[in-house]
Amino acid sequence: MLEKIDHVGIAVRNLDEAIARYTALCGRGPDHLEEVASQKVKVAMFDVGESRVELLMATAPGSPIAKFIDKRGEGMHHICFKVPNLEEALARLGAAGMEIIPGAGGEGAGGTRVAFLHPKSLMGVMVELVEWD
Amino acid sequence: MLEKIDHVGIAVRNLDEAIARYTALCGRGPDHLEEVASQKVKVAMFDVGESRVELLMATAPGSPIAKFIDKRGEGMHHICFKVPNLEEALARLGAAGMEIIPGAGGEGAGGTRVAFLHPKSLMGVMVELVEWD
Repeated sequence: MLEKIDHVGIAVRNLDEAIARYTALCGRGPDHLEEVASQKVKVAMFDVGESRVELLMATAPGSPIAKFIDKRGEGMHHICFKVPNLEEALARLGAAGMEIIPGAGGEGAGGTRVAFLHPKSLMGVMVELVEWD
Repeated sequence: MLEKIDHVGIAVRNLDEAIARYTALCGRGPDHLEEVASQKVKVAMFDVGESRVELLMATAPGSPIAKFIDKRGEGMHHICFKVPNLEEALARLGAAGMEIIPGAGGEGAGGTRVAFLHPKSLMGVMVELVEWD
């Protein structure tokens, strides 16, 4: 049902400093940089095997990443799994009692479709699901 | 330098409840169950693509996972990357100013070798490195 870990999202205060650290970790620079205005984040992606490490910096106070850092500090924010069919996955998970965060999903970058499961459904872990070809 | 995400470790209070939830998420049960006495944890592993989701429950108060949950609650605890050569990776990362947690690494399960980087080196993320064939 889950094809792979698409990415692990990490909330950071300063994207340039984080990029420097993760460049040292990965042994090379980021593969992709993007600003996602709808989510009020700047993003740096590092490819690792079939997955990615996604560094996320808030671009506005009160945005989801800013609120996360205010509450918990920097660190792992979510894990995203690729699924073959998002609607089927959500129907199955809803039937299993998982709480899907309303309004948090929809169109993602590059024509993907995403949804988020509430951390209380999965032992404190925010899970994103993504469907893309 | 990093071959893949080997696993994402999730600290949980009740392993049976967590297994039920992640079985629903994954659409099938865990691939591996283990008690690691040296780390005072019980572990359930779910294969996802080339990676795994690792649920970790403390078996004793004061153990690393118990302390993590006391401080931060349940949730993502660490991310583990597979490297081709652990000694080379640690030499390179030490030279780049990363703090390696003393005494936290060594022999892992199944003849693997592991080491841990301090979260303050990587924006609040505990990173494990593993070498295995």
